Amino acid sequence: MILKAVFLGLEAGGKSVVIMNEDDAERLGVLSLGRVMVRFDQVVKTAIVSTSSEMISPGRIGVCKKVWWGLGLADGSEVEVEVAAFPDSIYFVRNKLAGRKLTYEEILEIVEDTVGEKLSDVEISAFVTALHSFGLDLDEATNLSLAMIRTGRTMKLDGGPIVDKHSIGGVPGDKTTLLVVPIVAAAGLLIPKSSSRAITSPAGTADRAEVLMDVGLGLDEMRDVVEKTGGCIVWGGSVHLAPADDIFVRIEYPLSIDPLLLPSIMSKKKAVGADLLVVDIPTGRGAKVKTIGEADLLAKDFMEIGSRLGIRVQCAVTYGEQPIGSAIGPSLEAREALETLMNRSHAFDVAEKATAVAGTILEMAGKADGKALAREILRSGRAEEKMREIIEAQGGNSEIRPEDMAVGDQRFTVRSENRGHVLWINNSSMAEVARFAGCPKDQGAGILLSKKIGDSVEVGDPLFTIFAERGGNLQRALERLEGLRVMGVGDRMEMLIHEVKERPVPKRSFTLDR
Amino acid sequence: MILKAVFLGLEAGGKSVVIMNEDDAERLGVLSLGRVMVRFDQVVKTAIVSTSSEMISPGRIGVCKKVWWGLGLADGSEVEVEVAAFPDSIYFVRNKLAGRKLTYEEILEIVEDTVGEKLSDVEISAFVTALHSFGLDLDEATNLSLAMIRTGRTMKLDGGPIVDKHSIGGVPGDKTTLLVVPIVAAAGLLIPKSSSRAITSPAGTADRAEVLMDVGLGLDEMRDVVEKTGGCIVWGGSVHLAPADDIFVRIEYPLSIDPLLLPSIMSKKKAVGADLLVVDIPTGRGAKVKTIGEADLLAKDFMEIGSRLGIRVQCAVTYGEQPIGSAIGPSLEAREALETLMNRSHAFDVAEKATAVAGTILEMAGKADGKALAREILRSGRAEEKMREIIEAQGGNSEIRPEDMAVGDQRFTVRSENRGHVLWINNSSMAEVARFAGCPKDQGAGILLSKKIGDSVEVGDPLFTIFAERGGNLQRALERLEGLRVMGVGDRMEMLIHEVKERPVPKRSFTLDR
Repeated sequence: MILKAVFLGLEAGGKSVVIMNEDDAERLGVLSLGRVMVRFDQVVKTAIVSTSSEMISPGRIGVCKKVWWGLGLADGSEVEVEVAAFPDSIYFVRNKLAGRKLTYEEILEIVEDTVGEKLSDVEISAFVTALHSFGLDLDEATNLSLAMIRTGRTMKLDGGPIVDKHSIGGVPGDKTTLLVVPIVAAAGLLIPKSSSRAITSPAGTADRAEVLMDVGLGLDEMRDVVEKTGGCIVWGGSVHLAPADDIFVRIEYPLSIDPLLLPSIMSKKKAVGADLLVVDIPTGRGAKVKTIGEADLLAKDFMEIGSRLGIRVQCAVTYGEQPIGSAIGPSLEAREALETLMNRSHAFDVAEKATAVAGTILEMAGKADGKALAREILRSGRAEEKMREIIEAQGGNSEIRPEDMAVGDQRFTVRSENRGHVLWINNSSMAEVARFAGCPKDQGAGILLSKKIGDSVEVGDPLFTIFAERGGNLQRALERLEGLRVMGVGDRMEMLIHEVKERPVPKRSFTLDR
Repeated sequence: MILKAVFLGLEAGGKSVVIMNEDDAERLGVLSLGRVMVRFDQVVKTAIVSTSSEMISPGRIGVCKKVWWGLGLADGSEVEVEVAAFPDSIYFVRNKLAGRKLTYEEILEIVEDTVGEKLSDVEISAFVTALHSFGLDLDEATNLSLAMIRTGRTMKLDGGPIVDKHSIGGVPGDKTTLLVVPIVAAAGLLIPKSSSRAITSPAGTADRAEVLMDVGLGLDEMRDVVEKTGGCIVWGGSVHLAPADDIFVRIEYPLSIDPLLLPSIMSKKKAVGADLLVVDIPTGRGAKVKTIGEADLLAKDFMEIGSRLGIRVQCAVTYGEQPIGSAIGPSLEAREALETLMNRSHAFDVAEKATAVAGTILEMAGKADGKALAREILRSGRAEEKMREIIEAQGGNSEIRPEDMAVGDQRFTVRSENRGHVLWINNSSMAEVARFAGCPKDQGAGILLSKKIGDSVEVGDPLFTIFAERGGNLQRALERLEGLRVMGVGDRMEMLIHEVKERPVPKRSFTLDR
């Protein structure tokens, strides 16, 4: 079928998309979401079809940017359009839909066609859903890691051992990485840390670090920083370690499922050449993982995949029932991290968790009594000194003081209406209020806790303060707060936790951030 | 967030879609495929977000037609954009993703939000995939039927019994319905038949009937025809019996899965008020259902769902290893059907299958010796007479003769290179060649078989003729033919059916047509 090309200023998420008139599509025998080959001047491109009865008139075909430039079209160019076969990778997705185990070759082709934009969102959704429904075994998880590594960039560092840490996330205020990296680097190990930005949480490690320095480094710049200082904290998105994962995450987000958690994490660790890895698994009510038993099962999987990829893994199951430290939000957290590095913080749990994790890494690397060594590196100021080196190497101000970091001047302090002790803090509600206040985009937005679990409280005592950069956001955060129960204060737990009077819609909160 | 509206001439498949600049979306805290509420002048619409770094500049928001008209926007209107919650139906989809059985209320909400365009393609894909992966039990299938009926239109006929027939399809050339409807109506029963167009096959019943009469009737017109003649053959798409199904089919098509087969069929039968139903299950190599055991299991499900919906169901397991009759393609098949009604056809199997299916219906309705009665109605010319009444009532030419139906004048006859008997015919390859020749859009395109399984063949005998309306299509069909094995001629079956020398990509052909 010969059609006249019409330029669509559409990026279509990088996909090759054409829009055909409904009648032409029916005539050609292709449905919406089917595929066509578009040929012009000896060049052929495959594209996914959308149909429209109005937008494109019969005899014409709307062409997205990618295909337009790829074929070198001009307005009105006559292209030949034919029905295209589905890519082989679809048949592999169907194998998984039938409950079959996928081979490495099949997984690689699916991941390549995901990165190459040859699979549509509907097909990727089916793949992710099938992985979630049937589960993936350790062979498949390992092969997914390998496929993601193969379709992304990798880094080769001289020397070693190369170490890494990762938290599966889910607990607000977890600035542990900002302390572990300098402690470990100060001990002489190499830690090329790439981190994610927040997707559904108030701040990711990349957002926290960005308050102090540039995190959008390329892979070469990242290696330079690690070679110079022993460590770095960069945003994973700019080093393209696993481009497939960015696409999978986008599909997983509305579905609130994450079957790719393990392969995604492990592929990025392998891509930077990690030999030793500690995975932090925050556990407890309000964390991603609810019980120690569940955490152990996940740890087993991490260790097994690690061993297949040649990475020695240990896991730290940590207390995840309340935020880490007092601060939530990029600037507030960066400030608390710097204060802790300067031994000026009262947030006992931040230093405690960071030295525990760093200690494990140090012991894996052969140092005796790792936690004591980590504590000594922190106490002596060597961790602070190392952090300032890294900040300098990443283009930040190495002289920065905690009070230099601007936080929002729109503030509201929530006070207690009863007395007793703090019995519980709801992580996801805290996170939601911080998001409404402007996190993570407004760096100065967030929450500062005055009380944590176990603290005694009198009527009128401040419980926490909400920070926002703009009045509208503070207002919205306060409105949202009304519908949430964020902190429980009393003498003892009430026995009735939750009443179910009609069939509930189970809207579990879900933190996608990895 | 306040943004200036930009009109997008985009229909987006009827969905509410907006395109935001990537930075704005990040600032707002919404990812591509997330949802926002767009507010203008007291009116609020929820839309699914796409992000673009180029197409929409910061501070602006591209708005599709549906939302644009819904809000009454003008170019540059300032709209307020907020992150919206996911609809409850997503949580129900997630329940199925977790392997849980869905309740009627959950299913209804998912189907309503599918029809109401509140669920994105990614989410509907996850739902369909989860149904396929976990399966749906008879309660769920029944409830899906009920939900599809509730979200579509229904018809109430006076008198009765109201009967219906359905083939699950998959065999080319199956024009049985064009005979069953007039036979059954001539016996005094009501048969309000709605049929589908081809999706992946060379012709659907609606395509075949369209050669003879208008099939795009509305529901009221359909009822008028049935009240006048006792029967009708209309296209299901124009009567909107199950709009949800059109959407599910679009998603299922690239995935080649069809977990909704049963509920989809049964909902449409219940919507027209059927009391009695015969389901034709073509069975054998090359059909959708391969074995009689499998056919029995499917029959059991049809009968069970039928009894829950108040429809008495019987199933006819029919021979499906080769095309029905000699003709494939809309005009060729309509011609063969009319010839059979006029007792002028030599295609024994067409009349045999039609009278068997019609006979079952007649017996279910209390007539004695149904098949003999059906044969007599056909032999006596009463079926032809009834068909001409229906053609007239649906705006066709009731005097039409078989030779009036135009078939393509571009033809090529394939002749046998060996002698013996026809041992097998490949249904899906035949269908593919017919599609390349122009089916179903070119009504005169298709294939006419000169030999069928068991016929004796000499070297040089014609095996089949390909018809096309345009030379280019004939050429393409012949090119496609080269790569296919469509018919086997020989003295005996070769023992080696198929060699597997390297790991195969199992590209099973899939006929979505229901």
